[in-house]
Amino acid sequence: MKVIKFGGSSLASAEQLTKVLNIVKTDDRRKFVVVSAPGKRHGKDTKVTDALIAYYEAYTSGKDVHENQEWIIARYQSICDELGIPGVVMASISEDIHSLATLPITDNQFLYDTFLAAGENNNAKLIAEYFSENGIKARYVHPKEAGIIVTPEPGNARLLPSSYKKIETLTHYDETLVIPGFFGITEDNQICTFSRGGSDITGSIIAAGVHAELYENFTDVDGIFSAHPGIISNPSSITELTYKEMRELAYAGFSVLHDEALLPAYRANIPLVIKNTNNPDHPGTRIIANRTTAGSPVVGIAGDGNFTSLNISKYLMNREVGFGRKVLQILEDFNIRFEHMPTGIDDMSIIIRNRYLTEETEQHITQKATDVLHPDTLHFEKDLSIIMIVGEDMNEHIGVTARAANALAAAGINIEMLSQGSSEVSVMFIVKTNQETAAIKALYAEFF
Amino acid sequence: MKVIKFGGSSLASAEQLTKVLNIVKTDDRRKFVVVSAPGKRHGKDTKVTDALIAYYEAYTSGKDVHENQEWIIARYQSICDELGIPGVVMASISEDIHSLATLPITDNQFLYDTFLAAGENNNAKLIAEYFSENGIKARYVHPKEAGIIVTPEPGNARLLPSSYKKIETLTHYDETLVIPGFFGITEDNQICTFSRGGSDITGSIIAAGVHAELYENFTDVDGIFSAHPGIISNPSSITELTYKEMRELAYAGFSVLHDEALLPAYRANIPLVIKNTNNPDHPGTRIIANRTTAGSPVVGIAGDGNFTSLNISKYLMNREVGFGRKVLQILEDFNIRFEHMPTGIDDMSIIIRNRYLTEETEQHITQKATDVLHPDTLHFEKDLSIIMIVGEDMNEHIGVTARAANALAAAGINIEMLSQGSSEVSVMFIVKTNQETAAIKALYAEFF
Repeated sequence: MKVIKFGGSSLASAEQLTKVLNIVKTDDRRKFVVVSAPGKRHGKDTKVTDALIAYYEAYTSGKDVHENQEWIIARYQSICDELGIPGVVMASISEDIHSLATLPITDNQFLYDTFLAAGENNNAKLIAEYFSENGIKARYVHPKEAGIIVTPEPGNARLLPSSYKKIETLTHYDETLVIPGFFGITEDNQICTFSRGGSDITGSIIAAGVHAELYENFTDVDGIFSAHPGIISNPSSITELTYKEMRELAYAGFSVLHDEALLPAYRANIPLVIKNTNNPDHPGTRIIANRTTAGSPVVGIAGDGNFTSLNISKYLMNREVGFGRKVLQILEDFNIRFEHMPTGIDDMSIIIRNRYLTEETEQHITQKATDVLHPDTLHFEKDLSIIMIVGEDMNEHIGVTARAANALAAAGINIEMLSQGSSEVSVMFIVKTNQETAAIKALYAEFF
Repeated sequence: MKVIKFGGSSLASAEQLTKVLNIVKTDDRRKFVVVSAPGKRHGKDTKVTDALIAYYEAYTSGKDVHENQEWIIARYQSICDELGIPGVVMASISEDIHSLATLPITDNQFLYDTFLAAGENNNAKLIAEYFSENGIKARYVHPKEAGIIVTPEPGNARLLPSSYKKIETLTHYDETLVIPGFFGITEDNQICTFSRGGSDITGSIIAAGVHAELYENFTDVDGIFSAHPGIISNPSSITELTYKEMRELAYAGFSVLHDEALLPAYRANIPLVIKNTNNPDHPGTRIIANRTTAGSPVVGIAGDGNFTSLNISKYLMNREVGFGRKVLQILEDFNIRFEHMPTGIDDMSIIIRNRYLTEETEQHITQKATDVLHPDTLHFEKDLSIIMIVGEDMNEHIGVTARAANALAAAGINIEMLSQGSSEVSVMFIVKTNQETAAIKALYAEFF
């Protein structure tokens, strides 16, 4: 059995859905199909999920929502029309979209998730019907029926481990199951989504739950490239990656696969392959526990912007038991996650994603930290990017850090921070965001 | 006015004390003399401080202390005899050494400090008398009289900032003041020492308190070398260092100057010079706020062993708000200071000095951390050394890290961890201790 997941661009139009149908048909082990909401058909198109956000905002701010509803319904209708899907599905979809605007506006966070989830949910109904009409015995399964029970963290749900028992029973069905991705159900029956792009997570959960032989993740690219194609023209594609390598690349900006989607597959040791709906014969990129050694010690170079560093210095900082803990406590009190904490002798930097900070929060943190820590200096440093070079074999190649630092130096790029060794499979550089592209180019030229 | 401090080897014998006398005499601005306990006269000699530790241990374990007392008294007696110092001082010293064995064994920590402090204290009496007999109007001043009031942290005292007001009044004396280093007095009148080697701290405190024009720290070397002479033969000596550079070098093993001794001088902006009692005409090493640019971006390379790393990995660690804080809280609960905390994506290493760890503590930490954090893996990694390359100009030299990493790679040294950027003036490498010497040699060859 295989679990196969299709992303939004693979499901954006009748033309794409025809490809999806053929892919599922060519291998009868593809018994579990996880689907996203319809994506963009062309560059200026709107994703259904974004249309649902606009609908939610109009509804909760008391505006007229008629136009929002009609746009979304028409979007599904046009796919149904082109594919000749009978009207009964569209009636269900239309009713579901309208019914959102009758829900009580009490807990806005769960309500928001309920609006968003409608994109995947209705697409799953549509696709199950399309499959059934075209020779695949298919059945739509709601996440509640599938047993995807999650923590009540809107926009950031996590699967309850106890869910797997129920998910395993999905293997009892004869039909090919079509399951909407991206969301689960809380124990209180609230719809609650994973973090955005979370259909990958659903696929991984189902694959782990049913002990699939393979989790196929279909996107619109021929697998994972060794660097972002928007920065490096025609980067080499990667045949095999380990879970760890993928995890680090995903963390630092490789958005092909959601960075939390690996965990269930990793823990259950399910191989994962990234493939292209538009080029299904391409082998894509396999993600597995152990791979055969590649030529280069580096398999991929990733970069991600939007980081801020909180820099604190205090003479004899390390004599104070609890100094670091107090710094982190202050951040935790503001519910801020930190990414890294490189330290000098009397200096400490805490790297934080910009999205956790506002000017107001920064002021509060500055005030609190000044009162509690009495630092010599404390300031926020903006516009930082994390660059990671990733490869399982790096540990066996002593000079990798040297080569990387050399390449950056030769390109005139200042390394704001460099950290090597805490992770076994990556070296991390922090540079100013305006040097991020140049840094990735320099590293790519060095290692590929 | 200058504050001048002499280390133990400068005060070990009559021959050395003659040099000290001449040094103090040649500059009448040398009004404050801070002294250590007598050090070793030759390789196999015992330091007075170590003899006092043995005395303390014999006394508190109920053994006969007569031999301990006599050895210490004889040590001072031989110096007095050679210098022809009148017997009244020896009577006072002898009484003081004997009186230690009459103190109540209640609070052992303060008692230990009281024993230790006797080495400096009696030497100050002896030297003040020697000066007075030889043309310097000198006066012995006990730290209590000097106003060195400290926190009640035995073996680790810190000056109370309010002390400076009293210390400033030392400028009212006409005499040259001889002050024992290494200890102060708590507000409860307990003798409490700085961390070991802390006479440097006393000198720095006096220099800051009396607003000295210069703090002269006399040792037995011609200043600071750019690397340890035990590892690099004939390393180049350093003419000028900034406080920051000295601080980082001292942290990572440059033991010429106590690494906490800089703070008072630094805050009061008092220039400091490291000079050689045996070669007083050598200019030594000046430590100041800003220096003129040197030729090499690196001024010194230091290494220090005896570090352990606690390595923790957990998938999606950084999604858990508070994970890092909890790790540090556990260490804090065991009263353990951490030195550095490099982090990967799902990995965290906490670098700790070996002296804070025992096998038992490690077991407790492992247990607690496993219970609280549910890590995927957790283990202690032993026998690590920190190597630091230090220089204020490094920030302006983009390629310094690259050169250093290259040099280490070329020498076949595996960089366990590397951290650059959190400190403005250093790059830190962590290597296995059995590669420490080779690493320092490789870096020295690269930069000098």
